[in-house]
Amino acid sequence: MRPTMKDVASAAGVALKTVSRVVNGEPGVNPTTAERVRAAIDALGYSRNESARVLRQGRTATVGLVIEDISDPFYSGLGRAVEQVAIAHGCLLLSGSSGENPERERELVRTFCARRVDGLIVVPAGDDHSYLRPELDAGTPAVFVDRPPGPEIDVDTVLCDNAGGARLAVAHLRRAGHRRIAFLGDSPSIFTAAERLKGYRAALGGLFDPALVSMRAPDLAGTGADLEHMLGLPDPPTAVFTGNGRLTVTTLRTLRGRPLALVGFDDFELADLLTPGVTVVAQDPAGLGRVASELLFRRLAGDRGPAQHLQLPVRLIARGSGEQSPSDS
Amino acid sequence: MRPTMKDVASAAGVALKTVSRVVNGEPGVNPTTAERVRAAIDALGYSRNESARVLRQGRTATVGLVIEDISDPFYSGLGRAVEQVAIAHGCLLLSGSSGENPERERELVRTFCARRVDGLIVVPAGDDHSYLRPELDAGTPAVFVDRPPGPEIDVDTVLCDNAGGARLAVAHLRRAGHRRIAFLGDSPSIFTAAERLKGYRAALGGLFDPALVSMRAPDLAGTGADLEHMLGLPDPPTAVFTGNGRLTVTTLRTLRGRPLALVGFDDFELADLLTPGVTVVAQDPAGLGRVASELLFRRLAGDRGPAQHLQLPVRLIARGSGEQSPSDS
Repeated sequence: MRPTMKDVASAAGVALKTVSRVVNGEPGVNPTTAERVRAAIDALGYSRNESARVLRQGRTATVGLVIEDISDPFYSGLGRAVEQVAIAHGCLLLSGSSGENPERERELVRTFCARRVDGLIVVPAGDDHSYLRPELDAGTPAVFVDRPPGPEIDVDTVLCDNAGGARLAVAHLRRAGHRRIAFLGDSPSIFTAAERLKGYRAALGGLFDPALVSMRAPDLAGTGADLEHMLGLPDPPTAVFTGNGRLTVTTLRTLRGRPLALVGFDDFELADLLTPGVTVVAQDPAGLGRVASELLFRRLAGDRGPAQHLQLPVRLIARGSGEQSPSDS
Repeated sequence: MRPTMKDVASAAGVALKTVSRVVNGEPGVNPTTAERVRAAIDALGYSRNESARVLRQGRTATVGLVIEDISDPFYSGLGRAVEQVAIAHGCLLLSGSSGENPERERELVRTFCARRVDGLIVVPAGDDHSYLRPELDAGTPAVFVDRPPGPEIDVDTVLCDNAGGARLAVAHLRRAGHRRIAFLGDSPSIFTAAERLKGYRAALGGLFDPALVSMRAPDLAGTGADLEHMLGLPDPPTAVFTGNGRLTVTTLRTLRGRPLALVGFDDFELADLLTPGVTVVAQDPAGLGRVASELLFRRLAGDRGPAQHLQLPVRLIARGSGEQSPSDS
C-alpha cells in the first residue's frame, strides 16, 4: 500500500539510484532533477522506512528499558528522563514492566535483545544475570539503574545512596528523641530494601531490635498487621521509618491519623499536604534515569572503559511527621 | 560480533538452509541433525534477529504510543495498560511524551510512522491531524484515546464521559446546597477541558457566572491567583470543581486547609488520606488504555469496519470535601 522508491522513480521519470541519492542526501544529482524527485515524493506521500534503513547499518536506533512498573510514579519519572535522553540521541524507547518478577525481567530483556535494541537500561527484578552475558559479549551495552546486577556481570550501575539515606532518616528521628524506631521495608530480596535495612541498623546501633522490623512486599494487609502488632508490644515504637513510597502510603493508611513519628524513603506529590506533612528522604528518579541513559549513550558512542558505578545523593526534607517527639505518640 | 546463521551452519557442519529450517521450526530436518544444529546454536549463543525477521514480513511488531507525559500518573496508568495488551499480542511498545505540544506530537507520530510501527495509539496535543492522512491511507491504523482527533480524519476513539462527569460533580455540589460553584479548568484548547466546562455550565444553568471560571494550563501561580481573586469577590464561591488531577492538587496547595467544598475530576492515590478526604469524579485510565489497544489490535487483525467511537463511564467517589455545605466555608 505504501509508495516505494520505485514508484517515486517512475513518477519522476528518473532512475531508482537517483531517488535513493535524493532521499539519502547524497551528492551527484542535478538540482532540477532533485526538485522533480522531491515533488514526486510529496505527491505520492513517500517516506523512507527508517527501521529498514537503520537495520542495514546494523542497529535499530532503539533503547530497551526494563522497569518494575511504569505506573509507579518513581519509575515513570525515571522512564520519562530516559525517554528524553534517548530521543535527544535519535533513538526511540521500548519499555516494559517486570512487575518484580525475575522471569518476566529475563523475558523482556531477551525480547529486547532478540529485537536487537542498541542498548539496555535495566531495573532488575532478579539477581542472577548470567543470561545477559552472551548479549554483552555480542556488544549490546547495558546499564543497571536503581539496583545492581548479580555478580555474574560487571556493567555500569547508577544507584542512589540507600544506606546513607536510611542513616539520615534514623539519625533525624533519634535527634527528635526516639529510641524505639520501627522499620517497615520491602521484600529483603530487593537490593534497595536490604541496603536501607543495613543503614537503619547501623544508625540504631545498640538500639536495634528485630521485633521492630518488618520486611515484605508492599501490601496493605500484611504491613498493616505487622505495624499493629508492633504498636501492641509492651515497649512499642514511637517512630517508624518506611522503606519506600508505597510503604509510606500503606503506613499512613494503617495509622489513619494516629500519631506516630514517621520518615519515609522517597518523596511523593502530596507529602506536604497531609497533616502533618510527611518528612521524607528524597531520591531523584529523573536523575537516575538521566545519568543512566547518558552512560549508555557514552557506551554506544564507543566508550570501552571499565564499568562505572555511580551513586546519586539523597536528601532529607523535614515536613512535620519526622519532627514529632516520642511524647507526641 | 554476534554469531550468524552461517557460523551455526559451519559449527554444526550443515547447510545454511538446514539451520534456517531449524530456527524457523520448518519441517524436513532429520532429528539428529536438528539436535546438532541446536547444540551449535547454544554453544555459539546464536539468536535470530527478530527485528529483521518481522521486517521481512512487512511489519515491525511494535505499537507507537504518544501521550502527554509518561510521568503523569493518569498517563502512566494508561500506558501500562497499553503495554500489557501489546505484549500479549507479541508486540513491543514504543512510547513518547508530547508535553502538550502539537508540534512535538506530530514529530513523534512521524518518527513512529517512519519506523513503520504496526499501529498508533495517540493522546493528541493538537487538533489538526491532516498530517496523519497519508499514514492511515498507507494502512497504519490509529486509535485516539482521551481526546479525539481533528475533523480531518475519522478513526477509532476511546474517550471518557467528560461532560457527564462534570454534570455529576456540579449536581453533587448543588445537592449540598451550593449555588456559587467555581470551575478551575485546564487550557480551553484541550478537548477534555472544554467538555468539562460544557458539562459544568449545563449543570449550573441560570447559576452560571463567567467570573467563577478560570481556564489555563495548570500552574500553581496562575490558577492560585485566579482562585484567590474569586474568593475576594463580593459574592465568592462556596465550592470549586477542579478540571483534572493536577488542578485539584494546585487548588489544595492554594487553599492550604482553608475550607471550601471541592470536587475534583480524576482520582489520585492519597485523596482519601487528606483532611477532609477529596471527593472526585474518577475515570479509569487503565480502562482507556486497554480498550484503545484492544481496538487497535482488532484493526491489525483485519477489521475494516467503520470507525468506532467509545465512551467509558465515570463515577463519583464521595470522601468529604464535596459534601461540605456552604455554611462550612
